[in-house]
Amino acid sequence: MTELRGKPVADNITAKASERIEELKSKGINPKLAVIRVGARPDDLAYERGIIKRFETAGCDYEVFELPEDCTQEDLDSCFDARNEDDSISGILLFRPLPKHLSGNYIRSAVNPDKDIDCMGLYNQASLFVGTKKAYAPCTAQAVMELIHYYGIDLTGKRVTVVGRSLVIGKPVSLMLMADNATVTICHTRTKDLPEELKKADIIVASAGSAKMITGDMVSPGQIIIDVGMNNDEDGKLCGDVDYEAASAIVDSITPVPGGVGAVTTSVLLQNTVEGAARLNNGKL
Amino acid sequence: MTELRGKPVADNITAKASERIEELKSKGINPKLAVIRVGARPDDLAYERGIIKRFETAGCDYEVFELPEDCTQEDLDSCFDARNEDDSISGILLFRPLPKHLSGNYIRSAVNPDKDIDCMGLYNQASLFVGTKKAYAPCTAQAVMELIHYYGIDLTGKRVTVVGRSLVIGKPVSLMLMADNATVTICHTRTKDLPEELKKADIIVASAGSAKMITGDMVSPGQIIIDVGMNNDEDGKLCGDVDYEAASAIVDSITPVPGGVGAVTTSVLLQNTVEGAARLNNGKL
Repeated sequence: MTELRGKPVADNITAKASERIEELKSKGINPKLAVIRVGARPDDLAYERGIIKRFETAGCDYEVFELPEDCTQEDLDSCFDARNEDDSISGILLFRPLPKHLSGNYIRSAVNPDKDIDCMGLYNQASLFVGTKKAYAPCTAQAVMELIHYYGIDLTGKRVTVVGRSLVIGKPVSLMLMADNATVTICHTRTKDLPEELKKADIIVASAGSAKMITGDMVSPGQIIIDVGMNNDEDGKLCGDVDYEAASAIVDSITPVPGGVGAVTTSVLLQNTVEGAARLNNGKL
Repeated sequence: MTELRGKPVADNITAKASERIEELKSKGINPKLAVIRVGARPDDLAYERGIIKRFETAGCDYEVFELPEDCTQEDLDSCFDARNEDDSISGILLFRPLPKHLSGNYIRSAVNPDKDIDCMGLYNQASLFVGTKKAYAPCTAQAVMELIHYYGIDLTGKRVTVVGRSLVIGKPVSLMLMADNATVTICHTRTKDLPEELKKADIIVASAGSAKMITGDMVSPGQIIIDVGMNNDEDGKLCGDVDYEAASAIVDSITPVPGGVGAVTTSVLLQNTVEGAARLNNGKL
């Protein structure tokens, strides 16, 4: 059994991004991420700590803009506008979901496509649907693809079963897997016979967000499992959508949780922030 | 075996659209489609004749804007701009593919979302990806959904195999089927074992664009087949992606070609043009 760890993937992406940052800085261009956070949800704070660590390792600028949880729509939109218009910002990440009284609709249509490094805006969502290579995908979905590519997993003709149809993982990753010539089946809560759909897969991408829902008896020898889940088990311990202990004894290879896809996400965010700086300064290069 | 004919579906949509046109006209609103055609490809002309017939039946205005095949990008964009800005136009259809020297990129980003009744623009493509109910889908993909709904085919938990991953049918119809709770598998030219993927399906949506590629031995009793193909067979006769003669003796129900999905498309175009007028005049209603 091969453990598909995220760290070497992330290190590889980070090393390339660092080189590119040096190159851009030598031309007077300084990539910088703006993180917009409303309130202080523990999930957001944990992700933010990961981002800060990654960006500091790579020598990339960042700035966190925090708004109180009870801020107005006007507060949020103004905070966003300022970053969207600021030439020194090359990527904007807005933590979602937003509190219920706020809408992301204005941001979705107004965000500069070059700065929309987590694919929350119309332009990148449409481009992802169309299959334009230039589209930024949501960072976690892109992290799945980076991991697959890093470990040399050929997708052509492979049967991939994706569990979950969310906007940030299930849907975009399905489109990207298909663009790489996989035969994709997308399962969800209304799928009738999930074990059957899993059994026939060469590769399983688990992104349902339900702790250990994929049990040992649902997986088969030879399979590759990418577990995107980030859940807490009954003891409050971080775990994936797959019962790792049971599955790892059966399948060919599997990503651990933690230490798998989740470890790659912040490096994709870094990569895209650097790419954003290059795109925004295309005229100057 | 039930033949799933398009005519009653189209008639039903057309009747509703006609009623709505009367209602809108009584408020001084006049839906109108602008068809922009570059050159005179036989396929485009055939579709155009179908559109004219449908719109005349329904009492809906339309106008065809023809540009010579060797027109410039500026000619095309100006022709489009005029329709996009003209308040009397509520829907814009641009025949595609465009000649190779022309790009649809400007139109794609500039089209008024309310007039983008065939989903060529960013806003509707992104909305389709996100799953916003308000999105216009490409007319043929929407025609598949209208046919499925008209015949009372419940999609929840059903296994649907879609053959073809095109931007106008395969991809959008897969997203819409999934939104209706089907478990969707998307096959294409790189799929390894197409007969196997077809065998396990409850419903097959054939949109590969390859004459009679789905043969009798690939289908099973009980299946529902939606054939979106519009091809010419070896005798030059119009045929679908499915060998109708062979398949119809086996499956539960199937759409004929011609007379199936193709017969519904122009009624969807009509429906969307009327919807466009209502949306554009929302303030006035």
